[in-house]
Amino acid sequence: MTANHQIRLKSRPTGWVTPDNFEHVKADMPSPGPGQMLVKTLYLSVDPYMRGRMNDAKSYADPWKLGEACVGGIVVRVEESNGGKFPAGTYLTGMGAWANYQVTDGTGFNPVDPKLAPLSFYLGILGMPGMTAWVGLKGIADMKEGDNVYVSAASGAVGQVVGQIAKNMGCHVAGSAGDDAKVAYLKDELGFDAAFNYKTEKNLFAAVKAANPKGIDVYFENVGGPMLEAVINMMNFNGRIALCGMIADYNLTVDEMPAGPRNLVLLVGRSIKMQGFIVVNYPDLCREWIGVGAKWLQEGKLKYRESVVEGLENAPTAFIDMLKGKNFGKQIVKVADE
Amino acid sequence: MTANHQIRLKSRPTGWVTPDNFEHVKADMPSPGPGQMLVKTLYLSVDPYMRGRMNDAKSYADPWKLGEACVGGIVVRVEESNGGKFPAGTYLTGMGAWANYQVTDGTGFNPVDPKLAPLSFYLGILGMPGMTAWVGLKGIADMKEGDNVYVSAASGAVGQVVGQIAKNMGCHVAGSAGDDAKVAYLKDELGFDAAFNYKTEKNLFAAVKAANPKGIDVYFENVGGPMLEAVINMMNFNGRIALCGMIADYNLTVDEMPAGPRNLVLLVGRSIKMQGFIVVNYPDLCREWIGVGAKWLQEGKLKYRESVVEGLENAPTAFIDMLKGKNFGKQIVKVADE
Repeated sequence: MTANHQIRLKSRPTGWVTPDNFEHVKADMPSPGPGQMLVKTLYLSVDPYMRGRMNDAKSYADPWKLGEACVGGIVVRVEESNGGKFPAGTYLTGMGAWANYQVTDGTGFNPVDPKLAPLSFYLGILGMPGMTAWVGLKGIADMKEGDNVYVSAASGAVGQVVGQIAKNMGCHVAGSAGDDAKVAYLKDELGFDAAFNYKTEKNLFAAVKAANPKGIDVYFENVGGPMLEAVINMMNFNGRIALCGMIADYNLTVDEMPAGPRNLVLLVGRSIKMQGFIVVNYPDLCREWIGVGAKWLQEGKLKYRESVVEGLENAPTAFIDMLKGKNFGKQIVKVADE
Repeated sequence: MTANHQIRLKSRPTGWVTPDNFEHVKADMPSPGPGQMLVKTLYLSVDPYMRGRMNDAKSYADPWKLGEACVGGIVVRVEESNGGKFPAGTYLTGMGAWANYQVTDGTGFNPVDPKLAPLSFYLGILGMPGMTAWVGLKGIADMKEGDNVYVSAASGAVGQVVGQIAKNMGCHVAGSAGDDAKVAYLKDELGFDAAFNYKTEKNLFAAVKAANPKGIDVYFENVGGPMLEAVINMMNFNGRIALCGMIADYNLTVDEMPAGPRNLVLLVGRSIKMQGFIVVNYPDLCREWIGVGAKWLQEGKLKYRESVVEGLENAPTAFIDMLKGKNFGKQIVKVADE
């Protein structure tokens, strides 16, 4: 039998995450007790929200524990069932350890169908990132046909789905990303009506305005920082801002944080709603998305780009690169062959 | 017959409003055409939102026009009806000119009952400020019994009603105001559970925390500026912020504006909603408030403080003093005896 390894949290970062915050250690091969299953990790997901779990602070997801394996979304195959919920050979997705093997009683794991979509998609377009896009647009921003929709980090795991949902529902869609290849992908592959590289635009206000000529009805916020101020300037009456993440702020202490938008007063006169949300609190919409998303994938109405790194040992680097925006599409770590 | 005068907008302010932005001029006595009424102004209201109408900028209320009379909430008596909607002697409230006399066909005016409440109350607790409190708490913040409610500018026209509604509905209520007499009024007269003087507190974060020991579920935002950052720090999961106004920002150009809150990222993890609103877009709740508010007034469940200045010619000064926080309670200008 193959050896088992884990990626554990070695120290909590101050500021930017470094590889030293993790350690890659050999672990015992676990053995399933009664009612448990031994599962083998095939894919694991690295996501922006995990930055928060590295801190020892109250948040919506529990902090990772020092000296223990990091935890996140994974796709596994049941190797051995000791009277567990699912037979050997079943593919599952759920939250689990960054490890080659682990045991579980199946709580929080759901079976997935490899015929419906590639298994890694259940960590992305059909997993939490896709659900996040759907919940933000439908549950928070109440997006409707004809809305002018703008999304930042538009080529990322969530952003690329946001834009395509909006296009499929008859909206004008604009997005921004951090390099020219991503911008070209948004326009040429995903059908965005407008897109720009926020890193090379000298005037962010002008760039947001040019990409959203009729103003913005729905903003899907992924980045934080100065982008939000430029967006608020262009928001229409009764605009809705779904606050999904503010990746620019995740690695900063409060004193380092950039000033917030100076134009929040515009939210009053324009009756704008700005709302944060956590996807797991909208289980009905999450389920709805799996149906809608799988159907659109099969009909060719959704494209999806992944960035895959191979090897459990490379999960920390994949995570850090993703935080720095080096990924192009949803960042996945492939841990073992299917 | 008495002479007619108007207060007109003479120039648009850059920064703080000054009396020179207005002029007090003698005007012709208007004569009601067929279907019109001649009405005499008894009270007029000066409100923070009017600062926006002094600018030549798109907003929810049309800009006041240069050289024309300022417009706002007024209480009038019908002096003469030329086949108009209401007979002479009827008391009405609606939007009208800062003038002793004007003609109207009655559009936007509604009759008010001087037996139910003093006439000036229809510009305050039973008028737009009271409706604003009700709409913000019920329509935007979805306030429920047991919520921890915090309101800034708590002794102002809107704030004092916000706090009392929340108390009447079984909430913990805290507020802040800009001098010790106002703070004492909140605690001793209006029954606030906690209140503090934000001008004399050295640490705004500590003061907000001490006044809201269980955190904040509902924040009724009247002020803008640094208060919002301190409040966001103390907001509970699923908290709601009703953005009613940001008086601190109304007289500043964008470059002078203070930095926005640096901690907006907390809105994500705590699933906080922040929403601006304009009271006139919630007509059903406005009507509901007149019933609820009048009942509570009669039952002694609402106290209400006004600051009354006499004379049409003093409206500009009353308006400017209100913007600077010199008023104690709802600022009213008494134009003529009832």
